[in-house]
Amino acid sequence: MHQNAASLAPHSPEVAGAPASRWQRLRRRTYQLLERASSGDRASLYIDIGLILLISLSVAAVVLESVESIFTRFQTQFYWFEIFTVVVFSVEYLLRVWSSVEAPSAGEQNAVGSRYPRLRYMVTPSAIIDLLAILPFYLLAAGLVGGGDMRFLRAVRLLRVFKLTRYSAAFDTLIKAFSENARSFIAALSILLIVMLLAATGMYFFEREAQPEAFASIPAAMWWAFATLTTVGFGDVTPITAGGKVFGAMITVVGVGMVALPTGILASAYTEQLRVRAEEYREKSKDAWDDGVITAAEADELERLRASLGLGRNTASQILNSERVNNALTAEQNHVCPRCGRAAE
Amino acid sequence: MHQNAASLAPHSPEVAGAPASRWQRLRRRTYQLLERASSGDRASLYIDIGLILLISLSVAAVVLESVESIFTRFQTQFYWFEIFTVVVFSVEYLLRVWSSVEAPSAGEQNAVGSRYPRLRYMVTPSAIIDLLAILPFYLLAAGLVGGGDMRFLRAVRLLRVFKLTRYSAAFDTLIKAFSENARSFIAALSILLIVMLLAATGMYFFEREAQPEAFASIPAAMWWAFATLTTVGFGDVTPITAGGKVFGAMITVVGVGMVALPTGILASAYTEQLRVRAEEYREKSKDAWDDGVITAAEADELERLRASLGLGRNTASQILNSERVNNALTAEQNHVCPRCGRAAE
Amino acid sequence: MHQNAASLAPHSPEVAGAPASRWQRLRRRTYQLLERASSGDRASLYIDIGLILLISLSVAAVVLESVESIFTRFQTQFYWFEIFTVVVFSVEYLLRVWSSVEAPSAGEQNAVGSRYPRLRYMVTPSAIIDLLAILPFYLLAAGLVGGGDMRFLRAVRLLRVFKLTRYSAAFDTLIKAFSENARSFIAALSILLIVMLLAATGMYFFEREAQPEAFASIPAAMWWAFATLTTVGFGDVTPITAGGKVFGAMITVVGVGMVALPTGILASAYTEQLRVRAEEYREKSKDAWDDGVITAAEADELERLRASLGLGRNTASQILNSERVNNALTAEQNHVCPRCGRAAE
Amino acid sequence: MHQNAASLAPHSPEVAGAPASRWQRLRRRTYQLLERASSGDRASLYIDIGLILLISLSVAAVVLESVESIFTRFQTQFYWFEIFTVVVFSVEYLLRVWSSVEAPSAGEQNAVGSRYPRLRYMVTPSAIIDLLAILPFYLLAAGLVGGGDMRFLRAVRLLRVFKLTRYSAAFDTLIKAFSENARSFIAALSILLIVMLLAATGMYFFEREAQPEAFASIPAAMWWAFATLTTVGFGDVTPITAGGKVFGAMITVVGVGMVALPTGILASAYTEQLRVRAEEYREKSKDAWDDGVITAAEADELERLRASLGLGRNTASQILNSERVNNALTAEQNHVCPRCGRAAE
Repeated sequence: MHQNAASLAPHSPEVAGAPASRWQRLRRRTYQLLERASSGDRASLYIDIGLILLISLSVAAVVLESVESIFTRFQTQFYWFEIFTVVVFSVEYLLRVWSSVEAPSAGEQNAVGSRYPRLRYMVTPSAIIDLLAILPFYLLAAGLVGGGDMRFLRAVRLLRVFKLTRYSAAFDTLIKAFSENARSFIAALSILLIVMLLAATGMYFFEREAQPEAFASIPAAMWWAFATLTTVGFGDVTPITAGGKVFGAMITVVGVGMVALPTGILASAYTEQLRVRAEEYREKSKDAWDDGVITAAEADELERLRASLGLGRNTASQILNSERVNNALTAEQNHVCPRCGRAAE
Repeated sequence: MHQNAASLAPHSPEVAGAPASRWQRLRRRTYQLLERASSGDRASLYIDIGLILLISLSVAAVVLESVESIFTRFQTQFYWFEIFTVVVFSVEYLLRVWSSVEAPSAGEQNAVGSRYPRLRYMVTPSAIIDLLAILPFYLLAAGLVGGGDMRFLRAVRLLRVFKLTRYSAAFDTLIKAFSENARSFIAALSILLIVMLLAATGMYFFEREAQPEAFASIPAAMWWAFATLTTVGFGDVTPITAGGKVFGAMITVVGVGMVALPTGILASAYTEQLRVRAEEYREKSKDAWDDGVITAAEADELERLRASLGLGRNTASQILNSERVNNALTAEQNHVCPRCGRAAE
Repeated sequence: MHQNAASLAPHSPEVAGAPASRWQRLRRRTYQLLERASSGDRASLYIDIGLILLISLSVAAVVLESVESIFTRFQTQFYWFEIFTVVVFSVEYLLRVWSSVEAPSAGEQNAVGSRYPRLRYMVTPSAIIDLLAILPFYLLAAGLVGGGDMRFLRAVRLLRVFKLTRYSAAFDTLIKAFSENARSFIAALSILLIVMLLAATGMYFFEREAQPEAFASIPAAMWWAFATLTTVGFGDVTPITAGGKVFGAMITVVGVGMVALPTGILASAYTEQLRVRAEEYREKSKDAWDDGVITAAEADELERLRASLGLGRNTASQILNSERVNNALTAEQNHVCPRCGRAAE
Repeated sequence: MHQNAASLAPHSPEVAGAPASRWQRLRRRTYQLLERASSGDRASLYIDIGLILLISLSVAAVVLESVESIFTRFQTQFYWFEIFTVVVFSVEYLLRVWSSVEAPSAGEQNAVGSRYPRLRYMVTPSAIIDLLAILPFYLLAAGLVGGGDMRFLRAVRLLRVFKLTRYSAAFDTLIKAFSENARSFIAALSILLIVMLLAATGMYFFEREAQPEAFASIPAAMWWAFATLTTVGFGDVTPITAGGKVFGAMITVVGVGMVALPTGILASAYTEQLRVRAEEYREKSKDAWDDGVITAAEADELERLRASLGLGRNTASQILNSERVNNALTAEQNHVCPRCGRAAE
């Protein structure tokens, strides 16, 4: 009667299919180990933790290297740690590409994907991030770049921090909240830019004579306009003419609106996301109550769903409870005649 | 049984009516080409893109002209580009006025509208913006203005940026969110102004002796009050007396409330807008499920509605799903007697 | 069957009751004229507008008087305008007190109220504001105060701005949103104060040696703490030690939370208010549809309710529409047997 | 039929159980006196107020002691007040530990708890706060610490402010709102840190040559990044190169998003909390209406529930009202046959 809503849940990394050769089993295991650990898979969990630690340390190293005194003192250590990091990340990258054919969705989506599944993986955002994490080192080592570029390449290593996004389900939620309301956010950004343009132009007219340096041109005035409309308000540049101050005061008020816009959109997006996830949990609860009792297995499954949906315990227990009541009511209505009190069947 | 909710949907630019003369057909086509392109109309889409590009470039030109060095170097290019822009925008304006009688709503609303439909179009906000985009040039060319006004007229060209609003449905949503809660926003603004007045007066009393320049009068103190209540906080003027700092600290806290107010209103407005649009989609879904199946045509129509309402895919698919379940349940209840289990027909 | 929800609507200033003497009729008319105009009462509307204008001008005068040059030049005009204002406000105050017995709620609530209805009115917030608007003048005129107090008393006139709140329904909504969530707002404020205390103490420990002036004591450090936790960030005082900067950076992040707290509460409060008002409109709609048709009188009443509730037109029309569908469905279920198709009666 | 939702309500400090010895009765009374007063318990209320006052004064003393001039003048008074405070807090702590076995939940949860119930209490957050409030004094008195540590220990006394959280139900609500959405908040914080890292690195590259002091390293640039991304914007450090300003302007816009994120999450969390609490009130209302009438006792209980849930009066009265209507409708449907119009019984 009720539809199983599982199709909306983040898909689990189980690989359906026929029995496999030893080679295939090794590849599948590699895939499982590198993916976010499913509950119970200890080895995969340890590998996750190890990689997260290494990413964090590697990012910390980039940050610390920028401090002259630390860099001078620990130059060698930084060098060997970088070598170690790149080796590990390179092995990780190769293994990921190799085992990517084991992904449940591999070879499904399009013709190119089914013929070159590894190529398709290699152009996904997370694979590109993985590549960017190691490429600078090889480019430097190969002598392809040098001099001024070196510094830039070093900083590119900081993008390794994005490798962390792979391990958090909350990032997915956030990205979903953004993408489901992309149009509203783009509109908010457009409005910010239009208003910023008008604010900068206005301020340019009021202040350019009094402060020919800070408000020399509209682009120059944009620095003030951005700082004001986002309510950051550095205060390094401020209007000094009476007209500029009156106009500037109006712009600060408009700035409050500019901040309110994305906040309001995001608040409504999160409220909606919460509702959608609660609805999904409700469907599952309804199914679980269908036979009038919740077994230990069903309770387990519901708890897993709750956790994966990121629902709070209070909300979940209330949904479960109200579905119990609904189920009882429906049962009553269906099985007992309201007039004679006899069972319908 | 269920009402078709189409009347709430943004109206499509189809022109109902009888067969038309060649002249009329040309006018109708002109109207379609200038309006936001409906799906499938390639030519209209290219014209849209072309105009959007020209508007953007024209605004960029105004901004860049304000940079002395760039202006001196490319003066001629700026001049000819301005001529070109004005010609295109003038032709666009004339064609819009001419073809405005083809708008579905033309000649409906009031007596003036039905007799002078083009005049009615000419006083709409978007037509006025179109006129403002070209008027400065003609005024300058006719020698009607000059000297000091010239600079101002040049800046007016920046308002061309508002021509862009015509092309985004998200602006409509935003304007709707504002206008549906106009009273709340005006109240929030009034409160901000009242509190600002009190803050400025208080600060004037505390600081006027210590800082006779920055807090010379209540109007002068308003600059600080605006910057603080909007949490911008430039910091170019700050209290230095003990009393002023205590009072100022309290005002910073009040400022948080001033920012929270419009944000809260907007968040609730967006939540409500989302609910209204979801409800509309739900109605359409109900209709689509009425016969127990969703045809390709219905799926197409639902997808178009979803896009035009700006609903996220997740939300939409969940609504569609829940309506399927509801439809099945209703069908069951209607066709099977709750007492004897026999079919109703 | 459905309850009339009118009791929740802001009560209308109609005075129920028996025929009245000429004196009573004059008093009643005075009451009506001074209250916010109900639709159709032209004279009352003009008096409202006149008073609103006078209040605004009077506040503007206080602000402008603080500008030395303006004050010196227009001293006489300011003096006579103040006399005029006080006379009008005094007459208004006396008439309000006199006619307050005509308020629908007068003499109801308690023993004191029924015996001294005018006294009860005189201690309401709005009556006290009215008194404060004129009292300073009389105190000065009577020579009861003088010298240094004079300036303070002049500023008290600024509180006249609160007389404006009488004329806006949106203020009521705002005050309701606050009072319905008073506990949450107080908790948010308490948290802000506690966090502020800890931030100030922390900064005092980090910075007092490096900046013995700005961070001389915990109270002194509070100025920085308030500016930072409210995200105002004046920047007149900032940490300069490494420890202070690390601690200060953490406090900026906490500050975002401090701003998010009241905003979140207010957003949820407004969403709830909107829901409550929509529910009230829904009840009225249900009643209106009860006989299957909406008469012109019902439509009128619904429109008035919509306006007084501050509901947007879209939301209202959707509610009305969905109730029409519900009514049709209920009618179908009640009057037609689901099995045999015969009418139930 | 409907489930009693009392299990979700904050538990009342009544101690179920058998008749007790005089000693036990004393202990139980002690427990009641120290807990947040239940309505009607005058003595407990006075003790609450007394302790709240003492905590506040003690915190005020810590703050005032930091002002050199005040400390010098009132050194003796501060000393004796501190002695008094520590004595009272010590007695309070000992009594709380002693009477903690009277807590309804004592001895339930786990093996350790049932054997050493007082130990279990001593490791709860609120007991640790109580201990921290007195420990510094004893450490100083015992001469275990001294010199530089003294100042730190003095400041630790400020943590006494957290003793206040025991007395406010709104803190519980807030903590619940946070803990139910912990994952989202952690994700928002992670994103803030990642973006901050990228912003600091970017600014370091743009500005390190122009401002070798403020942007000497990535950690140094973090100070600017934090101030900007939280929209605090101190302005003590700002970019001066063209590239840095363009990059900085983009970061201010990103900062608006960083502020919007937790605000949006919190707004949705509060909306959800409100819904959950309204649902609970609805359940109780349904039960109360079950017999078609609300007795004085039921009205009393509902009002208590409303207050403890922190629901607004408007919201509550609307829920109660709608449940009355629902109950009437259900009664009608149950007792009257939809087909023949005769009563079911």
